[in-house]
Amino acid sequence: MTGHVPGTQREIRRRNLSRVLYAVAGQGPCSRAAVAARLGLTRTAVSTLVEELLRAGLLTEQGPTPPGGGPGRPGTALALPDRGPCGLGAEIGVDHLAVCAVDPRGRVRASTRIVSDGRDSAPEPVLARLRELVDDVAVRAREEGLVPAGLAVAVPGLVARGTTTVVRAPNLGWHGIDLAPALTGAGTAPGNEREGLPLAVDNEANLGAVAELWLDHTRVPRDFVHVSAEIGIGAAVVLDGELLRGTRGFAGELGHVPVHPQGPRCACGGRGCLEQYAGESAVLRAAGLTADGDRAAALTALAERAARGEVRVRSALEDAGTALGIALAGTVSLLDPRAVVLGGALARFAPWLRPALERELAERTAAPEAAVELLVSQLGGEGPLLGAAHAAVRVVLDDPLSYVASRVG
Amino acid sequence: MTGHVPGTQREIRRRNLSRVLYAVAGQGPCSRAAVAARLGLTRTAVSTLVEELLRAGLLTEQGPTPPGGGPGRPGTALALPDRGPCGLGAEIGVDHLAVCAVDPRGRVRASTRIVSDGRDSAPEPVLARLRELVDDVAVRAREEGLVPAGLAVAVPGLVARGTTTVVRAPNLGWHGIDLAPALTGAGTAPGNEREGLPLAVDNEANLGAVAELWLDHTRVPRDFVHVSAEIGIGAAVVLDGELLRGTRGFAGELGHVPVHPQGPRCACGGRGCLEQYAGESAVLRAAGLTADGDRAAALTALAERAARGEVRVRSALEDAGTALGIALAGTVSLLDPRAVVLGGALARFAPWLRPALERELAERTAAPEAAVELLVSQLGGEGPLLGAAHAAVRVVLDDPLSYVASRVG
Ligand SMILES: [Zn+2]
Ligand SMILES: [Zn+2]
Repeated sequence: MTGHVPGTQREIRRRNLSRVLYAVAGQGPCSRAAVAARLGLTRTAVSTLVEELLRAGLLTEQGPTPPGGGPGRPGTALALPDRGPCGLGAEIGVDHLAVCAVDPRGRVRASTRIVSDGRDSAPEPVLARLRELVDDVAVRAREEGLVPAGLAVAVPGLVARGTTTVVRAPNLGWHGIDLAPALTGAGTAPGNEREGLPLAVDNEANLGAVAELWLDHTRVPRDFVHVSAEIGIGAAVVLDGELLRGTRGFAGELGHVPVHPQGPRCACGGRGCLEQYAGESAVLRAAGLTADGDRAAALTALAERAARGEVRVRSALEDAGTALGIALAGTVSLLDPRAVVLGGALARFAPWLRPALERELAERTAAPEAAVELLVSQLGGEGPLLGAAHAAVRVVLDDPLSYVASRVG
Repeated sequence: MTGHVPGTQREIRRRNLSRVLYAVAGQGPCSRAAVAARLGLTRTAVSTLVEELLRAGLLTEQGPTPPGGGPGRPGTALALPDRGPCGLGAEIGVDHLAVCAVDPRGRVRASTRIVSDGRDSAPEPVLARLRELVDDVAVRAREEGLVPAGLAVAVPGLVARGTTTVVRAPNLGWHGIDLAPALTGAGTAPGNEREGLPLAVDNEANLGAVAELWLDHTRVPRDFVHVSAEIGIGAAVVLDGELLRGTRGFAGELGHVPVHPQGPRCACGGRGCLEQYAGESAVLRAAGLTADGDRAAALTALAERAARGEVRVRSALEDAGTALGIALAGTVSLLDPRAVVLGGALARFAPWLRPALERELAERTAAPEAAVELLVSQLGGEGPLLGAAHAAVRVVLDDPLSYVASRVG
C-alpha cells in the first residue's frame, strides 16, 4: 500500500544475501534450516538466497552428502568458500610495512612483512615499496585460487572521514597525503591488479579495534574502547559494534587527552597530554633506555628488564599505567563502555601497566554498577593488519550484489 | 524473490507514515507534492499515506481550499494538528518541579513550575507532588483538545538504560528509585490519566541535548557534546542525531572527568574531578558566596556580580572556564564532535566562562582542521523540560501505527 519505493526490494534482497553470509560465517558450516532459524526467514526464502550465493561462488556446499545427493539437498552443509574473493590488508608502520590476504573464511592465506624506517619519510618511496608488497601478496593469493576484492590500509595517523587521505601522521611526517593515486591509481604498474580496486584507508587503532570485535567476539563485547600504541597512543571507540569516527574522522585521540594540565609541552600544542607520560619515548626515557636507535630492540629490552623486575623499568611502566588509568577514567565516565581493551604494543606490557591502570579506573569511576572490564588483546601488534584485511573482505560479505555485478561488468 | 519476511510490509508502512509526519514537521504546512519530492516517494504513495494520517487525526488540511474543494484536493496544505496527541514533559530539579504539555506542532500548550527543595528528599512526597502537577497540566491540555500520549521525566542523575529507574541522583539523595509505580502505576489516583501511559525517564543533560537538536536545528549540528549544569555537571553526547547512552545508560559523566588528578577528593571516590572546579558549589565558594541557602538567589547574585565586574567573581568563573576547557579538550580529542553546546545554568554564565574555555580548547586540540564550534544554548535551563515533552510527543510521530492502535484498543 505504500506505493512504489524504488530500490527497496533490491535493498531487502541485498541485505538478506548479506545476512545469510554472516549467518554462515558466524556459526560455521551449517544447514539451510539452521540459517533460516537463525535469521527468522522461511526455508523457501533461504533456499532462493543460497542458490544465488552458490552461483556467485560466495557459498559452497560440504558433505555429508549422501550417495546420489545433488547440490541443494537439505542434508548438505553450507560454508563460506576458501576460494573466490579475498581481502588485502596493508599496514604502514613507523618501522615496518606489512601486507596480508584473508579469504572469506577469515583465514590468512598469504602475508609478508619487512622492516622499513618510516620516520620522517617521503611518502612516494614508502608507497612504491608497499605497492610491490601488495602485488606480491596478490599474486600468491591468486595462486591459491583467490581474487583480490579490495584493499584496506592501516596508517599511524589521522585519516579524513570517508576519504583515502592521511591528514596527519606525525611520526611519518606525512600531512595531507592521498594514498589512492599511488596504491590503486591507473598506471601504477603495467597490468597491476590494484588499479581500480576498492581502497579504504584507516587509522591503525580503528582497524585494531575492529579486528578485536570480529576475531575475538566471544571475549570482546560490542561496546568498548580499544587503546593501542605504536609510537603514539591512539584509541578507537566501538559502540554497538560500530566504530565511532567523529565528524572529521579524528575520534579516538586518547594520546592527547590532558592528564596533568600543567605538564610538559606536547607536539599537539597542549600540555601534559597522555603521550607525555605513557607514550613510547616517554616510557623508554623514564626506564633509562633510548628510543633513538632500533625501536624493536628497545622495546624488547624494556620487556625483558621489566620481566626481570628492574625497579626503574617497573616504575616507568607503573607511571605509564597510572597516566593511562587517569585518561581512561575520564573516557569511561564519558562513554560508559563495557570494556577497555589494551592492544598493540600495550598488550605486551599489560602485566606491568595493569595494576596501576586498574587502581586508577577503580578509584575514579567509583560506582560498582559502572565497573568496566579491562581486557588485553590477544592479537597485539597484529591487530591493525588483520583488521584491514578483514575489512576488505567484509565489503564483499556486506554487499554481495555489488561483488557479483563487478565480476560480470 | 526474498520470500515472505514477516512484518516487513508493515514496517515499511510504519516508517513511511513517520517520514511523512516529519517531512511536514520539518518544512511547515506544505502540499502532498512537496512531501513526495522531499521523501522521494510517488504522489500516489504519499496520498495513500496522507489519507491514513488524516483519518487518524495526525495531519490536518489547511487553506487555501477553493470553493467546493473537498478534503484531499491537491491545493490544500498539510499541517500537523494542534489537537490530538500531546507529550507531557516533567522535570525533577534539585529545587523545583516542572511540567508542560507540547502539541504535535511542538508548541507548549500548558505548563506549571513550583519551587520544591529536593535536596536529600524522600522520593514519595516529591513524586506525589509531581503527580498532582502532571494531572493538572493534563487536564488543561484536554481543555485545549489534546490527549496525553506519553510522559517523559528529566532527572538530575543516572538512569539505567531502557528503564524508568533512577540509579543514582546524588543531589536528591535517591538511589535505585523506579519512578513508574508512583507516576503511571495503577491506583495512583482515582480515574487518573497517567495510568498505563508510556513513561520515559532520562538524565536531564540527555533531554537538554535532544531539545537543542530538535528545537534549534538550524544552529546546532547533529554531532555535538552538550554540557549542562544544575548542581552537578553533566554532559550528553549526540552522534548523528542520536544520543550516546553507554552500555549501562551512564555515558556523559563529564563532571567526573579528572582535571587535576591529585586535586581535592570528590564524592565519586576520585580526585580533582571537573565538578571540584566548575561545579556550582565550587564556583560559589571561590566567588565568596554561599551555596547553602537559596540556590536561585545565590546564582542570581553570582551573575549580577560578574556583570558588575567583581574581580573575585570573574576570577572564579574564569577558573571554572579553564577547568571546563581542560575536560572538554579531552572530550573533543576522543569524540571529534562538530560543536560543544553550553546549556543549563552554564548558558547564563557563558560570557565569563567562555574566554578561558575557548583558550584551553584552542591550545589543547591543536589542529585547525579539528576546530570545534562553541555554542551557547538558547534554551538554557528550559532545555531538559522541553526535551522531555518533545520526546513524549515524538513517540507518536515515530510510530503513528501504535498510536492509532492504542486509540482503537
Ligand atoms: Zn598532545
Ligand atoms: Zn568525581
